[in-house]
Amino acid sequence: MRNFDQNSITQAVLERVAGAPDARTRQISEALVRHLHDFIREIRPTQAEWERGIAFLTQTGQMCTGTRQEFILLSDTLGVSMLVDAITHDHQHAVTESTVLGPFYVDEAPEVARGSDISGDLPGEPMYVSGSIAAADGAPLSGAIVDVWHSDEDGYYDVQHSHDGSELVARARFRTDAHGRFDFWSIKPAAYPIPHDGPVGKMLEAQGRHPWRPAHVHFMIEAPGYEKLVTHVFVAGDQYLDSDAVFGVKDSLIRDFEMHPAGAAPDGRILDRPWCQLTYDFQLNPASGAASRAV
Amino acid sequence: MRNFDQNSITQAVLERVAGAPDARTRQISEALVRHLHDFIREIRPTQAEWERGIAFLTQTGQMCTGTRQEFILLSDTLGVSMLVDAITHDHQHAVTESTVLGPFYVDEAPEVARGSDISGDLPGEPMYVSGSIAAADGAPLSGAIVDVWHSDEDGYYDVQHSHDGSELVARARFRTDAHGRFDFWSIKPAAYPIPHDGPVGKMLEAQGRHPWRPAHVHFMIEAPGYEKLVTHVFVAGDQYLDSDAVFGVKDSLIRDFEMHPAGAAPDGRILDRPWCQLTYDFQLNPASGAASRAV
Repeated sequence: MRNFDQNSITQAVLERVAGAPDARTRQISEALVRHLHDFIREIRPTQAEWERGIAFLTQTGQMCTGTRQEFILLSDTLGVSMLVDAITHDHQHAVTESTVLGPFYVDEAPEVARGSDISGDLPGEPMYVSGSIAAADGAPLSGAIVDVWHSDEDGYYDVQHSHDGSELVARARFRTDAHGRFDFWSIKPAAYPIPHDGPVGKMLEAQGRHPWRPAHVHFMIEAPGYEKLVTHVFVAGDQYLDSDAVFGVKDSLIRDFEMHPAGAAPDGRILDRPWCQLTYDFQLNPASGAASRAV
Repeated sequence: MRNFDQNSITQAVLERVAGAPDARTRQISEALVRHLHDFIREIRPTQAEWERGIAFLTQTGQMCTGTRQEFILLSDTLGVSMLVDAITHDHQHAVTESTVLGPFYVDEAPEVARGSDISGDLPGEPMYVSGSIAAADGAPLSGAIVDVWHSDEDGYYDVQHSHDGSELVARARFRTDAHGRFDFWSIKPAAYPIPHDGPVGKMLEAQGRHPWRPAHVHFMIEAPGYEKLVTHVFVAGDQYLDSDAVFGVKDSLIRDFEMHPAGAAPDGRILDRPWCQLTYDFQLNPASGAASRAV
């Protein structure tokens, strides 16, 4: 195979990847080649533009560290993460909706006792979060793992401050009780710009877009026999709910973070200043390899 | 904009990038979103497959150094580099054809005198290369820069041995004389596998493909008023001419590397062993911003 023109090159690459031993690898490779070549044929890049594309991808990879995932930011801001989410959950019944994982998840958040305050020494408005984990039929799921993370009052995550991951804060894991319940204290998160000091930030600027996300608390919930749920709960009234930089907002995930005056909270804690309350009851899909891949 | 399904998310992202101030940025962004989303909708990745895709791109970026460009390897092995080449040169007249740049180009190769031996202390079969640079009408181009690089007899480039770039060998720049001519000595290059100890090597293996390229000498030729030519000359008879891992072979770029017995070479050098000779006369297109972007 030699002497390719701008159409025969595609056929040549397709013939080459057709030998992939694994059928799924073959399928993904063939689709990638077709769509990627169609994209290139449509935009007709100059050599200089091709070089800029190579440099952009290289810089995006080199921006990644243990606590900064620039390719997830790219996937998020191009709507790919939410598209994958929509495809994965298009069979979903009336359970809690999912949204993007985002780039700030940390695998090793500590498990702490119910009712703990996970805000460390962070300043901010006290926030009491409580809720339950249940199956689609409402049956409570005890022993479910509720992984929680959110920004501080300035919109930053712990990992954006300490790059060695040694100072995890506003981040923890809880285990639900016999009634499927969990609760904890923290501080109210703020809207924030996604990290925009890297290649993705430059892309957003070139596209005339702002990098802001509406304030939210992340939840990742796991229970044996159920599909893992990755989602947020958004703060009602946030000015960025309709222009989230990563397209992650769903109406069912918005809640009032209800304000209360100083005084006693539901768990008996006495607050010397106003505090807010978030309540959310989550429902999980049964795990099903077949269902999660149904077309 | 909220609550996207797997079709409306594409429209939402398109509306967001429609505000790009620069028209070309807008055009590329819109095409990228459409083709990327079509690809994702076709393959319907699981969350785990999406994570593997993110990891693949991240590792590809992190494999890049000053002397290793894994994203160029990815572009080359997916046929994108040769597709861009075909698009860029589809207006070409009867001048020398181009092919991929490849990942081993070094910007700061030294300029040396005509007739120099650039092989350093490398073992191998002596190779005498000579040729000319001319315009499409045959007019010789004096003072053209001929940038040359090639592998050693084991198929490795200098930069694969010394990662600080301090030992450039089998690599140099020449300037053509008043008749547009250049010549130099080196050693005959060998076929070689592209670097396959990284993510791209894993991809090729998963696709059931070999990583080999037929033996060749790289040329990058620049002359004021002419289009820069990036090309190779391939060794006739190489077993990989029809299965080049990067799809770069064109018949017009294949030459016999003619063997000669020990004795006097054309430049008067006396060889005590057999040597080979490559002769190639290059012709350049006139520079034309308009022509190079014509659709």
